[in-house]
Amino acid sequence: MSGLTNTANPDAGRTIVSVDAMGGDRGPAAVVAGISDSAKKNADIGFILHGDQEQLERLVSRRKNLAGRVEIRHAQDVVSMEDKPSQVMRQGKNSSMWSAVDSVRNGEADVCVSCGNTGALMMMSVVRLRKLPGVNRPAIAVLWPSTNPQGFNIMLDAGADIRADENDLLQYALMGASYARNGMELSRPRVGLLNVGTEEHKGRPELKLAFDLISENATAANFEFVGFVEGRDLPGKVADVIVTDGFTGNVALKTGEGVAGLIRQFLGEAFKFSPLSRLAALLALTSLRRLNQRIDPRQVNGGVFLGLNGTVVKSHGSSDATGVSAAVKLAFKLSQSGFSQKLAARVASAVSLPQDAAKSSDTDN
Amino acid sequence: MSGLTNTANPDAGRTIVSVDAMGGDRGPAAVVAGISDSAKKNADIGFILHGDQEQLERLVSRRKNLAGRVEIRHAQDVVSMEDKPSQVMRQGKNSSMWSAVDSVRNGEADVCVSCGNTGALMMMSVVRLRKLPGVNRPAIAVLWPSTNPQGFNIMLDAGADIRADENDLLQYALMGASYARNGMELSRPRVGLLNVGTEEHKGRPELKLAFDLISENATAANFEFVGFVEGRDLPGKVADVIVTDGFTGNVALKTGEGVAGLIRQFLGEAFKFSPLSRLAALLALTSLRRLNQRIDPRQVNGGVFLGLNGTVVKSHGSSDATGVSAAVKLAFKLSQSGFSQKLAARVASAVSLPQDAAKSSDTDN
Repeated sequence: MSGLTNTANPDAGRTIVSVDAMGGDRGPAAVVAGISDSAKKNADIGFILHGDQEQLERLVSRRKNLAGRVEIRHAQDVVSMEDKPSQVMRQGKNSSMWSAVDSVRNGEADVCVSCGNTGALMMMSVVRLRKLPGVNRPAIAVLWPSTNPQGFNIMLDAGADIRADENDLLQYALMGASYARNGMELSRPRVGLLNVGTEEHKGRPELKLAFDLISENATAANFEFVGFVEGRDLPGKVADVIVTDGFTGNVALKTGEGVAGLIRQFLGEAFKFSPLSRLAALLALTSLRRLNQRIDPRQVNGGVFLGLNGTVVKSHGSSDATGVSAAVKLAFKLSQSGFSQKLAARVASAVSLPQDAAKSSDTDN
Repeated sequence: MSGLTNTANPDAGRTIVSVDAMGGDRGPAAVVAGISDSAKKNADIGFILHGDQEQLERLVSRRKNLAGRVEIRHAQDVVSMEDKPSQVMRQGKNSSMWSAVDSVRNGEADVCVSCGNTGALMMMSVVRLRKLPGVNRPAIAVLWPSTNPQGFNIMLDAGADIRADENDLLQYALMGASYARNGMELSRPRVGLLNVGTEEHKGRPELKLAFDLISENATAANFEFVGFVEGRDLPGKVADVIVTDGFTGNVALKTGEGVAGLIRQFLGEAFKFSPLSRLAALLALTSLRRLNQRIDPRQVNGGVFLGLNGTVVKSHGSSDATGVSAAVKLAFKLSQSGFSQKLAARVASAVSLPQDAAKSSDTDN
């Protein structure tokens, strides 16, 4: 298909986003609608779309604005949400997910987007893209709506690995700070370490060790370490990047989603209580929409896999067109900023940081 | 002071609540206002109030309805929120908190309420009341607003101890189920174990061991085990009691508070956006109040310390009269149900459960 140029150098032209069209709960129609939205807004994106050729050709042909901007790669299998990652690694070689990750591996695409099974996508990404030198555990970074000026905080790890020792937590701090610089244009992000209290004596042994390690590396790695933070700081303003193990991060993320959902439900019930409250709801509609936009999980969409040779954006499984488009936008932004290369350089330089911190003067990644 | 009878048997008359009047952020005035509210609503409560005698006498004398229902115990020291628990144990013997716990220890009061420093209160409670036979780690149980019919779920441990092995998690399940039976009148509570996914193969090793242990003990201990649950189930309806270690529980609790606070703030801003939205807010006032009541942390007030010889209710540090009164109500209810004794029997019988499950037919605690 014409109109596609591979941009190993992100400044040299169109950014190619490799998209797994099949893995999400809403199927390929939502994905194609989403990339169509993105294509309308941004002329600099091209797509490689992975999945059932016939189905995808039909869906793409209905969107005039996608003409010449989408290459379709047939993949006969689909990874389901119920598949175990280990099973997928044995049997998933013909899946749209595998194919989508491989487009980044082969250098045909700059970045990969999938709404599929998180565990399988992470395992595939690790096996096919490989970990960056110096990274022990890759991480999933997610965004939290927050009271900070940029509107969001970054938390990692959101569940790539249930364990993290002090060295992993240091890596997460470096990777999260790099993400904040490139994805949020924060020149010197503030990094916090999640704990049960802000006092230095609190928490598990590995957290005390991580506190010291991160503290020692902050200046050389060009971030500010604000020390221990608490759960309430995830949507707060004391830090831009919050570091934790994947078990705690996953529980916190899902707890936040649950509480937001509960309040949305209660709010709806409160406004349906009486004729007067229904009238009030009508008048308040714009205000309530404004609230919903700020806490809409579709807008906060896109967990980013960090610590690999290549960037993979995991969109929510239930993403609709808006969600997919938000994930594509994030993927484009990270690719444009040369994030993947900068992150690799940052982590590589940090491997020798404890011995070599004074020599490091590279602070732009 | 007259009018007080000690009720070792909770059915034998007035329930005596021992109240630490000094430890909260709002000082003794809020505490006295709170117990006055409780006294108005419930003729069966008497109070022992611990703190600065002169100050307390002045505050109590202004509340006519407290006449004859409050005994004041002078304590010259106050445990502050910043004091380290270990320090308090050495120097806190003349504090209002120590005195309040000791009234339960001495059998003068049935239950203790404090708004003070959680860590210090827990350490004092463990040292003065001692752990129940068979309990390794006492736990703090808190309430989550939820979509369940009873309106709340119980989560433990909310932060008494950052560690918990599989045996501790089993104890938490037993204690949480007992709390649900006595505090919420659920005859057969559903207990879930917090994890990063609901599949049996997920999570940390101790969680898999705890899964089996809790599963084996569920029938004999008269609760239903619903298996692994996720963060989003804390305010959800799949379980009534959710069990986790104190690190994860504390992060989840504070994350939930943070998210609720963020949404409240966003909601306020949304309604202040324009003259029309301000008008809508005016009309929506009742609906918004209704929402606030359901997620108001003052109503969900009162962490309960479980696993000790005696019940201690920890009210939020910033509790006002409403918060204190809610904590007193919970303390009264637990005392009335004979919760402390039933819990002790339950835990004692569970010590031998793995060997002796079939023999246990005591299912009312």
